[in-house]
Amino acid sequence: MRIVLDAMGTDNHPQPDVQGAVLAVKQTQNTIVLVGDENLIRRELASHEYPSDRIEIVHAEDVITMNDKPSTVGKQKPNSSMQIGMNLVRDGSAHGFVTAGNTGAAHAIAMLHSLKRIPGVKRPALSVIFPIRGEPVMFLDVGANTDSKPEWLLQYALMGSIYSRNVLNVEESRIGLLSNGEEAGKGNQLVTETRELLVNRTDLNFVGNVEPDDILNGDVDVVVTDGFSGNILIKTFEATVRYVSNNIRDELARSPVSIVGGLLSRGAFKRVRNRVDSFEVGGAPLLGVNGVVIIAHGRSDARAIKNAIVQAQRAVEGNTVSIIAERVAQTTSDTDNLSGKAK
Amino acid sequence: MRIVLDAMGTDNHPQPDVQGAVLAVKQTQNTIVLVGDENLIRRELASHEYPSDRIEIVHAEDVITMNDKPSTVGKQKPNSSMQIGMNLVRDGSAHGFVTAGNTGAAHAIAMLHSLKRIPGVKRPALSVIFPIRGEPVMFLDVGANTDSKPEWLLQYALMGSIYSRNVLNVEESRIGLLSNGEEAGKGNQLVTETRELLVNRTDLNFVGNVEPDDILNGDVDVVVTDGFSGNILIKTFEATVRYVSNNIRDELARSPVSIVGGLLSRGAFKRVRNRVDSFEVGGAPLLGVNGVVIIAHGRSDARAIKNAIVQAQRAVEGNTVSIIAERVAQTTSDTDNLSGKAK
Repeated sequence: MRIVLDAMGTDNHPQPDVQGAVLAVKQTQNTIVLVGDENLIRRELASHEYPSDRIEIVHAEDVITMNDKPSTVGKQKPNSSMQIGMNLVRDGSAHGFVTAGNTGAAHAIAMLHSLKRIPGVKRPALSVIFPIRGEPVMFLDVGANTDSKPEWLLQYALMGSIYSRNVLNVEESRIGLLSNGEEAGKGNQLVTETRELLVNRTDLNFVGNVEPDDILNGDVDVVVTDGFSGNILIKTFEATVRYVSNNIRDELARSPVSIVGGLLSRGAFKRVRNRVDSFEVGGAPLLGVNGVVIIAHGRSDARAIKNAIVQAQRAVEGNTVSIIAERVAQTTSDTDNLSGKAK
Repeated sequence: MRIVLDAMGTDNHPQPDVQGAVLAVKQTQNTIVLVGDENLIRRELASHEYPSDRIEIVHAEDVITMNDKPSTVGKQKPNSSMQIGMNLVRDGSAHGFVTAGNTGAAHAIAMLHSLKRIPGVKRPALSVIFPIRGEPVMFLDVGANTDSKPEWLLQYALMGSIYSRNVLNVEESRIGLLSNGEEAGKGNQLVTETRELLVNRTDLNFVGNVEPDDILNGDVDVVVTDGFSGNILIKTFEATVRYVSNNIRDELARSPVSIVGGLLSRGAFKRVRNRVDSFEVGGAPLLGVNGVVIIAHGRSDARAIKNAIVQAQRAVEGNTVSIIAERVAQTTSDTDNLSGKAK
């Protein structure tokens, strides 16, 4: 199997990216294709030992930065490491693509310029995966589509369920719909209408509306939401983890007794940070585009990049793209028949 | 000044409620009117010392529970402590109302059965106040109106700004609009249109779009949002604080060294919990109804109830209701003129 890695993705590229690729070729039997500035990549590779026949380099002139505008960068920088990398997957010379770069750009380039949508998918969804109580919980959409429709959310549920089972190895993925209350009558119009579809139009393991507390209790494996609320949810989660940790650190520094206490509990704190850190998972898929795309955090270290590569590999092995295509075609025709709506 | 307290509000009513009233009459010069089951209230009062001429009791037959449906309970239980209490304010025999009961019911009863809306206010908003970095930050709407319109959010901003200045003593309240990105182009349609109104139609101190991280950095004093996203935001914040704290507690129990560390750092932990606890603030207003209504958490203890009463008193002293009425009338006519829309 050949996995493409955008070597210019992380905030500190290409160091963590290249190092992550080296870790991956050592751990797996796959070939990694590094796309980016060839000189920089070679320089970084020179400081590592690895099975050199399984790392290839494809030069790319342009680098997409966090300041590039997603909607236009695909046209403005056609030779970016991101676009050239995805095209390798589109053209069949690789099986999956991993980047830690600009998420919005990856979404736009995949959808408009390179891989395009899986036929029948209304809108691809960005996801994120957090380990909660030790188990991977998937959230989608977390920002691709800020204004969503019930039919889109239905597809997010379907795609998330397939990914959760086939890649994250969750037996019977419990699907929850993010809401401001668990009762059937709660939620905004989008939630009410989506709930209706999830109950009546699918055979998914839909467990109902969920609130943030239920999610952190480990009650669901997949959280379905529009891209706006989903984005607020995951950013509030991340920001609060940091806020509470920083507050504790500050408070511990305030008295000699608690300074000692803090030193003695340092290991425990580190384990807590790891427990909630998405780096453990390494990345999350852009679901609904016609190829495996895993997006990792810009702050990823080598280990996180390696984990993202491993995840891309599992997504390829699990045939996620073709299974999504199949199920979407099926559900779409069912839904259209039942609701009497075309398209 | 006379403040009405729903004595049947907290999960453990009437004990924390009555005790909170006792703390309040000792700390202030006000009279507290306790509304609820007279026998229960008298029994609880008997165990306290207090200036008895400043606590009055009004009997109410019915109690609203968390299981009562907000939309119908006002009609079904016209003699609830909540409704009788609010009617005292409506009829001018008291100045403000405090409850720790069913939030949805308080909202519905105030709006439909008792106080009604301030003329010109499109939708009253539920708020919550958290101390962030030691300063009170107000969030609204957090659940009254899950599907909102730009004009409503404009009024939330206006009402929040007035309350923040006149009651929370924030000099020049910085207003932020919750969004999935700070840039002007980010956000869903509601955010984009609201931003436009906030920039062009008001003289509020609008600092722009804010993300959860900005809020926890202390960059704003008032967070404006639709009731759905706002509800997700505050519930994720609360759930994550609990989740991280519980994780730390579990991890600390896992080794002898960290158990000692945990004991030594106990004080620090407690200070952190206090730092983020809305109990410090005691409650938050239901803004836009024609009278001062403060809603406290169902888990409130006596101190939190006392703080909520003090807040009601400040809201009365700050003339919040009449100032909101004035400013809303003014802004509404401005907006209507400029946008050419009626109503």
